[in-house]
Amino acid sequence: MREAFHDSLNHISDQLVEMTRLAGSAMTRATTALLDADLALAEGVIDGDARIDEGRDRLEDQAIEILARQQPVATDLRMVVTAMHMAASLERMGDLAAHVAKVARLRYPLSAVPAEMRGLIVEADQVAARLVIKAGSIIAAKDVTGAEQLNADDDQMDHLHKEVFRILAADGWSHGVETAVDITLLARYYERFADHAVSVARNVEYLVTGVWHSRRPYADVE
Amino acid sequence: MREAFHDSLNHISDQLVEMTRLAGSAMTRATTALLDADLALAEGVIDGDARIDEGRDRLEDQAIEILARQQPVATDLRMVVTAMHMAASLERMGDLAAHVAKVARLRYPLSAVPAEMRGLIVEADQVAARLVIKAGSIIAAKDVTGAEQLNADDDQMDHLHKEVFRILAADGWSHGVETAVDITLLARYYERFADHAVSVARNVEYLVTGVWHSRRPYADVE
Repeated sequence: MREAFHDSLNHISDQLVEMTRLAGSAMTRATTALLDADLALAEGVIDGDARIDEGRDRLEDQAIEILARQQPVATDLRMVVTAMHMAASLERMGDLAAHVAKVARLRYPLSAVPAEMRGLIVEADQVAARLVIKAGSIIAAKDVTGAEQLNADDDQMDHLHKEVFRILAADGWSHGVETAVDITLLARYYERFADHAVSVARNVEYLVTGVWHSRRPYADVE
Repeated sequence: MREAFHDSLNHISDQLVEMTRLAGSAMTRATTALLDADLALAEGVIDGDARIDEGRDRLEDQAIEILARQQPVATDLRMVVTAMHMAASLERMGDLAAHVAKVARLRYPLSAVPAEMRGLIVEADQVAARLVIKAGSIIAAKDVTGAEQLNADDDQMDHLHKEVFRILAADGWSHGVETAVDITLLARYYERFADHAVSVARNVEYLVTGVWHSRRPYADVE
């Protein structure tokens, strides 16, 4: 009985790691779709989001089932509760990747991103990819030290985000208002994606230590 | 013992209703700060967000305590689990109000909103206020019918959101890129605020019926 219970907790952890993989893959493919104006790839990301949504629904159902039947306490209880929060964040990360893909689709056959901004978008995607891969490892290894370090990567995203707004606010923006709107929303999507990765890591800290070091690590960039 | 338990569940419900009140008040004050370029009011909203954050932290702690000690099942369990989700949404609604206030602060002593957009921002605030008040009533009364109807109000927010982007994308936008960026972000903040209110209502549906009618009622506006 207890063994089956711990198997089910491990299964939950595995599913969370799989969700990080799906969310990361979605964001990277969405970025490629955006930069290459690849409609089929964009559509694939948008359609594929349902799989991440289902992952969250499944996890939530399992968590409630475990709470009702096994009535876990202490670390086991924290595992179940944090799994629900992490699944919600990862589901949202999938949405944000789909939002990037939808900007790509909206502007097809053009690319929404002017040449001078492509480097920043590539960097944002790389930081996002790094954050979500690390979040997966942190979940798998219950790695509190890794979770603490994740903030440093998120600082890079905040820096990129500010750089985007500096360019948008500078005189000499020549790409028109519509492109400025696209870039504003894209920057927000990458930044929120990173915030959710940090939130996942903070949940692992709480899971292991029983203490919230900071519940709101991210003060989204203004 | 059981009576004390049900008192604690009622107390959780009361706290959620109080959080809807705080989040709604924050958004309305943030909107006034934005339209009147009222710095003191903006600062008040930004500082006041900590109170909503604390409300969420307190609720989460109480929920975990109840799960550990009372090991609730069925409706009681759903009350505790949905309370955690609703508190997370309400906390985020407070953040979004603070984001609106931060735009007001950033542009002070000017108003970030051009004259021709003020009407839309007022409407967005009114829809937001209506949604969050209804969400509070729905929680208090466990009102499934009200929860179903909330989508109609959210449709109004989606409509406003599209109208904002139509104006931004039209030829003849004369307020520059920086203002377009502000308006883009503001529109997103109001829209996400509304999405979270709908999410709260959906949690009440699940709490009462044990079935998720739709877990993701909101496909955020592209």
